[in-house]
Amino acid sequence: MSMAHKWLNKVRWDENGLVPVIAQEAATGDILMFAWMNRDALAKTVELGEAVYWSRSRKKLWHKGEESGHTQRVVEMRLDCDEDVVLLKIEQVGGIACHTGRHSCFFQKFDGEDWQAVDPVLQDPDTIYAKKHP
Amino acid sequence: MSMAHKWLNKVRWDENGLVPVIAQEAATGDILMFAWMNRDALAKTVELGEAVYWSRSRKKLWHKGEESGHTQRVVEMRLDCDEDVVLLKIEQVGGIACHTGRHSCFFQKFDGEDWQAVDPVLQDPDTIYAKKHP
Repeated sequence: MSMAHKWLNKVRWDENGLVPVIAQEAATGDILMFAWMNRDALAKTVELGEAVYWSRSRKKLWHKGEESGHTQRVVEMRLDCDEDVVLLKIEQVGGIACHTGRHSCFFQKFDGEDWQAVDPVLQDPDTIYAKKHP
Repeated sequence: MSMAHKWLNKVRWDENGLVPVIAQEAATGDILMFAWMNRDALAKTVELGEAVYWSRSRKKLWHKGEESGHTQRVVEMRLDCDEDVVLLKIEQVGGIACHTGRHSCFFQKFDGEDWQAVDPVLQDPDTIYAKKHP
């Protein structure tokens, strides 16, 4: 194994070979989404300079924005103290990270009794994904 | 099961009964740490208004700051679109979230070749935990 992979080996991949990833908008500090990466996804993210996750449901690499155009340009990448969580500081192309058409996936706020959707839908999801699913 | 638990039931707990939690400093937007909660931890967090996590290594509830005094006051709580990740916006008592004595656990930055510790240690960890381990 080449020394070039030292940084990939430093990550403590879980029992499924995955690491949790937090995507934070670099300019605003807003947390946009949470996803997972395997080793290939993290290597590809660095290679492309754009977020590539591992889709646990589809069991394949998921270049974020591949369908919607809402790619995430990586500005900075960090690893936590235990080396088992990655933080991506990104620029969110189109300003929409969530498949519901919202800026952030974290749009449900706890009001003391229940979770309430409090953030606006910026674009109808049907029009976001219509390009490839006419 | 009472209706009072509706908000707890809305969370999609994983196969281990856990949900990933991101702790973000409310005032600065800084991401301070990442941890896990089970149902009891989330209920306790709301009850106390302070972050209570589930320690996967110690297999018990972990009231953050119970030893260090670095508790986390909950300002806001959010759930993501898939209802399987919680975001806590907090006030970090003492300004230190990391057991290494740093503000944030995400102090290792990728420089293109490796992860480098770039944030300062604000307090010697030995003095943080000395109170209960003299």
